[in-house]
Amino acid sequence: MANLHLADLEGLRAYLTVRISPARALGLMLESVDPVTIAAPLDANLNDKGTAFAGSLYAVAALAGWVLVTRWCAAESVDAEVVLQSSSAKFPSPARAGFRATAQEPAAAQWQKLKRMLARSGRGRAELAVEVRCHEALVMSFKGTYAVIAAARAE
Amino acid sequence: MANLHLADLEGLRAYLTVRISPARALGLMLESVDPVTIAAPLDANLNDKGTAFAGSLYAVAALAGWVLVTRWCAAESVDAEVVLQSSSAKFPSPARAGFRATAQEPAAAQWQKLKRMLARSGRGRAELAVEVRCHEALVMSFKGTYAVIAAARAE
Repeated sequence: MANLHLADLEGLRAYLTVRISPARALGLMLESVDPVTIAAPLDANLNDKGTAFAGSLYAVAALAGWVLVTRWCAAESVDAEVVLQSSSAKFPSPARAGFRATAQEPAAAQWQKLKRMLARSGRGRAELAVEVRCHEALVMSFKGTYAVIAAARAE
Repeated sequence: MANLHLADLEGLRAYLTVRISPARALGLMLESVDPVTIAAPLDANLNDKGTAFAGSLYAVAALAGWVLVTRWCAAESVDAEVVLQSSSAKFPSPARAGFRATAQEPAAAQWQKLKRMLARSGRGRAELAVEVRCHEALVMSFKGTYAVIAAARAE
């Protein structure tokens, strides 16, 4: 399969850096895949108030969710595109230092449902929650719905 | 007032470029203030599918809403911080070229309400809709709630 290298930390880290321009520009770094954790420094992401720009917080959160679903696909040998469809976000407090997004592993039942949908129609959907923290403080809570679209089976 | 220069295109454009690091890194450009329109090139915002990264679409949208509220404050001589509190977003189709966020001017009644809230308590809220388009196609619809917090009157 095309995306098997996206199952591990090194493969995913290289992919993000090489293939996603803003991940590079904003200094985003995949730190862990279990749980999926992406860190960002403050300096590349500063707004006019000396805190992190909301768009940067969103970027780490959206990417963390994307990595979680992409990694599941790779582990299941599902060759698919993963695309963010919709999201909601809240920003309870400002980030005054570097920050870190952690994607919450969904219930096993949701992965099972996604698997059934992919088997039946080649399309499915995953709903994920991601938290962004600065030290211990919650600076963003994010919910995203990702579409998963299977590639035509090669082979 | 500290922020009177944020009423016009040149002042706002300089402010975004100098004070908001990701605006620079992602190549965001304030094109117009009436309506508030921010453009971005595809190349600095590419994802692995060769389309615009969702986090970049969010960045232009969140910033366009912020500019609209900040400009209103400057025009009303309200010295205030404008902070994104929450948002929802949908991504109906991918952006395969440069894209452009346009903030929708809210109803006059909403500005009046914000003015009353600021006069009464020094805090208020504005709810805005922003559309991001690539050529004619809608690639993101964004709704954001911005908190407006008046600074202590500095004379």
